[in-house]
Amino acid sequence: MKLYSYPAAPNPRRLHIFMAEKGIEMPFEPIDLMKGGQFDPSFVALNPMSTVPVLVTDDGTVLTQVVAICDYLEALHPEPSLLGRTALEKGEIREWSTRIFNEGVMAVAEAFRKSNPNFANRSIPGPVSLAQEPVLVERGLKRLEHFWSTLETRLAGREFVVGDSFSMADIDALCACDFGKWIRKSVPAECVNIARWYAVVSARPSAKAG
Amino acid sequence: MKLYSYPAAPNPRRLHIFMAEKGIEMPFEPIDLMKGGQFDPSFVALNPMSTVPVLVTDDGTVLTQVVAICDYLEALHPEPSLLGRTALEKGEIREWSTRIFNEGVMAVAEAFRKSNPNFANRSIPGPVSLAQEPVLVERGLKRLEHFWSTLETRLAGREFVVGDSFSMADIDALCACDFGKWIRKSVPAECVNIARWYAVVSARPSAKAG
Repeated sequence: MKLYSYPAAPNPRRLHIFMAEKGIEMPFEPIDLMKGGQFDPSFVALNPMSTVPVLVTDDGTVLTQVVAICDYLEALHPEPSLLGRTALEKGEIREWSTRIFNEGVMAVAEAFRKSNPNFANRSIPGPVSLAQEPVLVERGLKRLEHFWSTLETRLAGREFVVGDSFSMADIDALCACDFGKWIRKSVPAECVNIARWYAVVSARPSAKAG
Repeated sequence: MKLYSYPAAPNPRRLHIFMAEKGIEMPFEPIDLMKGGQFDPSFVALNPMSTVPVLVTDDGTVLTQVVAICDYLEALHPEPSLLGRTALEKGEIREWSTRIFNEGVMAVAEAFRKSNPNFANRSIPGPVSLAQEPVLVERGLKRLEHFWSTLETRLAGREFVVGDSFSMADIDALCACDFGKWIRKSVPAECVNIARWYAVVSARPSAKAG
């Protein structure tokens, strides 16, 4: 098994925190997104989408989606469970993980990709040339505002996003909050529930991954 | 358990095909998206995002994401497996299901939402007012073109998208292909592998769901 990644970026960071929580280590090759390593022909041959992370399994299967790699690793290393044990836990963790990624991480990404020259013509990850539209910054910021309010409401009276233990949903929310800082949009001061939760999850040793 | 949905729309249709394959039936209330049923105050109280499907479990948990509902139902009704049995199957099915949804279904959605008055100011599902930007139509069509080529390559020499049996990845691909017709973008004639695969999967009784 071999992992190609750039742990500092918000999407791969989700995987690195997931692996740190489970104590999973494997051969690793850094792909420096800021230096265009994702466009190196040898990496493009592996993943034509030019995205990280990429996991190559022992039988040569290539996985490029964080959710897919996490499903694979959860099946191989079930403990501690981060994707849920019961049907209801599995459903609720997937529910919030998906929503937090789409409504939080992707909202910041819309605003960020426009503002960073390394993502010129890559308003969406992948090989298709898509201009950075100014309107997407505005749209991303509006979506992010709504996301903070959704997360703040969800965390009222809850220690974690789902159930009574740390899960993938917390990992995704932590990465969304930290990614916000990249565009100078920190969690709003009035979000006291997020602040309380953030202090706990960001103090876990796994938060240093990525 | 109760399901609120509009089976004809491409996103909920994924769930209805999934349920048909497993023979799952449950109490159902139609929410007519074309008549604005998703904005009815009683439905908004249930799902502030105004999206379908919505599953309310017996303990009152509300699930709004197709992937979450499918994870929940797969755990309750494991046979026939549509999300994979082994770690590798789980990873590969999630990989392709996620890619097909993001690169195919969402590409069509970008173009479609702009063109349909029922989605005015809802360029992304949810309660945030987001204008239908003309540039998104163009972007969606470019992404869709790339998706056809990705799917065509993937299906070369394969009976199904992953492994040797029908899975969620095939359901997502079928819904992407049929959704394309909504914007008059059918699978291009040169995609012979997609055409062969499509003839098989669209002939399954489950394809009539939605």
